[in-house]
Amino acid sequence: MSYQIAVLSGDGIGPEVMAEARKVLTEVEARFGLDIHYTEYDVGGIAIDNHGCPLPDATLKGCEAADAILFGSVGGPKWEHLPPNDQPERGALLPLRGHFELFCNLRPAKLHDGLEHMSPLRSDISARGFDVLCVRELTGGIYFGKPKGRQGEGENEEAFDTMRYSRREISRIARIAFEAARGRKNKVTSVDKANVLACSVLWRQVVEEVAKDFPDVTLEHIYIDNATMQLLRRPDEFDVMLCSNLFGDILSDEIAMLTGSMGLLSSASMNSTGFGLFEPAGGSAPDIAGKGIANPVAQILSAALMLRHSLKQEEAASAIERAVTKALASGYLTGELLAADKRNEAKSTAQMGDFIAQAI
Amino acid sequence: MSYQIAVLSGDGIGPEVMAEARKVLTEVEARFGLDIHYTEYDVGGIAIDNHGCPLPDATLKGCEAADAILFGSVGGPKWEHLPPNDQPERGALLPLRGHFELFCNLRPAKLHDGLEHMSPLRSDISARGFDVLCVRELTGGIYFGKPKGRQGEGENEEAFDTMRYSRREISRIARIAFEAARGRKNKVTSVDKANVLACSVLWRQVVEEVAKDFPDVTLEHIYIDNATMQLLRRPDEFDVMLCSNLFGDILSDEIAMLTGSMGLLSSASMNSTGFGLFEPAGGSAPDIAGKGIANPVAQILSAALMLRHSLKQEEAASAIERAVTKALASGYLTGELLAADKRNEAKSTAQMGDFIAQAI
Ligand SMILES: CC(C)[C@H](C(=O)O)[C@@H](O)C(=O)O
Ligand SMILES: CC(C)[C@H](C(=O)O)[C@@H](O)C(=O)O
Repeated sequence: MSYQIAVLSGDGIGPEVMAEARKVLTEVEARFGLDIHYTEYDVGGIAIDNHGCPLPDATLKGCEAADAILFGSVGGPKWEHLPPNDQPERGALLPLRGHFELFCNLRPAKLHDGLEHMSPLRSDISARGFDVLCVRELTGGIYFGKPKGRQGEGENEEAFDTMRYSRREISRIARIAFEAARGRKNKVTSVDKANVLACSVLWRQVVEEVAKDFPDVTLEHIYIDNATMQLLRRPDEFDVMLCSNLFGDILSDEIAMLTGSMGLLSSASMNSTGFGLFEPAGGSAPDIAGKGIANPVAQILSAALMLRHSLKQEEAASAIERAVTKALASGYLTGELLAADKRNEAKSTAQMGDFIAQAI
Repeated sequence: MSYQIAVLSGDGIGPEVMAEARKVLTEVEARFGLDIHYTEYDVGGIAIDNHGCPLPDATLKGCEAADAILFGSVGGPKWEHLPPNDQPERGALLPLRGHFELFCNLRPAKLHDGLEHMSPLRSDISARGFDVLCVRELTGGIYFGKPKGRQGEGENEEAFDTMRYSRREISRIARIAFEAARGRKNKVTSVDKANVLACSVLWRQVVEEVAKDFPDVTLEHIYIDNATMQLLRRPDEFDVMLCSNLFGDILSDEIAMLTGSMGLLSSASMNSTGFGLFEPAGGSAPDIAGKGIANPVAQILSAALMLRHSLKQEEAASAIERAVTKALASGYLTGELLAADKRNEAKSTAQMGDFIAQAI
C-alpha cells in the first residue's frame, strides 16, 4: 500500500517534534511494509513569513492531494500583533477544518500510570485516574454560523455571532460518540446548555434519538457549567463526552490540563471519507523551541492516530502506542514530566524519539 | 432608614438557609438601627405548584416594589420533566435578570484559610490560596440575543442562537470590573474567544478603551479555553476576571468548584440604579433539604452583599462578613466542610445561624 502524507510542521517546537514522529514512522514502514510518501508544506507563522499568509494555496493543494495531514503546531509572539483573522492558529486551522469538512474531532485524554503527580488535581482524586474521550463537533456551531459581523455606530455599534446546528450535523457527530463508547466504557455524557440555548435543546433531542440505536450505551446529559465542575470532583466517572464546537473547545482543554501532561496528548480531526488532520493537543511552545527538550510523544501519537483513522493501519498504530507506553512505563521521560529533583534524568526530544523508534 | 426586601426563598434548602439569614439580619437591624421590612413571595418549583408558573405576577410586582431581592435557590427533581423554558431555574432567574436589567453579576470566590483541603486542587497549588472576583455580564450575549429559534424540516431542521454585544453593554460591565480591581489587586483579566468570535473582537477592543481610564490597573486578555486551564495551574495569579454572559457562567462555576466550598459563596446581580438580586452560588440541594444540615453561610453572605450594594449599609455588611469569618476561623462548620473523621463535630444549619447572629 502506498500513501501520500502532507506534513505541516509549523512553528516553535513543531519541526523538532515532527522530526521524531518521522523517525518512528520510518521504523513502522519497514516493520509493516508500508510505502508512505511525505511532502512538507509551510503553515502558520512560517507561512506568513515566507508567503504572506498562514495557509498558502500550495499548502492547501498539497493537502488536497494527500491521504492525510500530519500537523505540528503554529503560532508565536512574532505574529501576535496581527489581527485575529490573520494569526497563524486561527488563519490555518479554521480554514483547514472548514475546507475539508473535518467535522469530527477526537481528543482522548487520560492520566498515565505513574504520572498522577503531574495532575493539578488533589492526590486522592488523581489516584483514581481517569480516561476521557472528548468527541467535539468541529465545523458547525458558533465557529462557522452566519451571520457574523458588526453593525451600527458609536455606543450602539454591536457585534454578532450565530450559533447554528442542524439535525444532520448533530446526529453524525453523536453517532461517532456512541460508536466510540462501545469500544470503551459504554457511556456517553452529552454536554449542552439546554436551559438557555435553542441549539442545545435540539442537540439534546437529536442525541436522545440517536441513543435509541445504541441501547447498550448509557447516555446522560450535563450542562456545560456543571461539566466544568464535575470534571474536577469526579473525572473518573466520565467516559465519552460529546460536545458542540465551542463547548468542546473549552472542555477538552480543561481535561487536557487535568492530565498535567499536555505533551502526551494528540487529537484527530476527520471528515466522512476518513481523511483527517492529526496534531498534538499542546501549542507551539515558543519558549522552549530549539532547545531539544520538547516532548515529542504527542506528535508521535498523532502519527499513530493518522495510521489508524486515515490509513486504516490499525496494527501499525497500535505498535506505536505500545512503544510509547513502554517508554513512559520505563520512566523514560522529558523534563517537564519529572519532579524538580529528578530533572537530571530528563531525556531529550531526540532521545525520546530514538527510544520509541527502537521499541517498534 | 426604612427598606423593603422581597424574600424569594424558593425550593430545597432555600427556606431553611433563608431562615438563618433572617436571624442574622434581625441582629444587624438592632445593632445598626435599620428598619427593614420583608415580604415573602413564591418562586421556582413552589410557585409552579401553587400558581402554575415559576415567576408569578405577584412575585414580580413584589420585587418591583422592593429595594432588593433576597433570593434562595430553586429547582428539584419534581420539576425536571418540564420543558427547559418552564423549569424553575431558567423560568425564574432569566426573566428576573431581563426584567430588572441586572446586567452586573459579581461572583467572588476565595479559598478560606483552613479550608484548603476542601479544594479539588493539588495541595501545593491550593496551599498558595486564591481570591478571584468573577465579573459577569448578565443580560446580553447569547442568553438574550435575537433571533433565537428553529426552522426547516427533517434532516435540515436547524436551531440557532445569536450572540450579540454592543459597545454600551461591554463598556458598562468593563468599568465595573476595573473599579472592583482598584479595591483589590489592581488586575483585570478579560476572558474572550477573540480568535473565533466577532463579539469577542469588539469585547477586547472596548475593554482596551475602558482600560485607558484606569492606568493603575493591569489588564490582560485570555482565551476562554486557556482560562479554564490556567485556573487549574495558577489560580493565585488571577484577581478580577471580566467575562461575557456565557463565559462567566462557565468560568464562575469552575472557580466556585475550585474553592471546594460552594456553601460559602454568594453572588450579586445588579442594575445601574443599585437594585439587585442576591443569592447563594450553590443550588437547591434537594438531597439534603429538610435535614437541618445545609450550610447557611452563602445565604447569610448574600444578605451582606445586599446590605452593601443595594442598601448602601457598608458597616452592617462588614459586620456580617466579620461574624462569618469568626465562625469559620473557630472551626465552626457544617458537615460538608469537615473531613470524614471529624463529621461528629458538624454544626447544624440553625447552630451556624445562631453563632453568626450572636457574633454580630
Ligand atoms: C486556534 C483556535 C481557533 C482553536 C479552536 O478554538 O478550535 C484551538 O483552540 C483548538 O481547540 O483547536
Ligand atoms: C439556571 C441558569 C439559567 C443560570 C445561568 O446559566 O446563568 C445558572 O447556571 C447561573 O449561573 O446562574
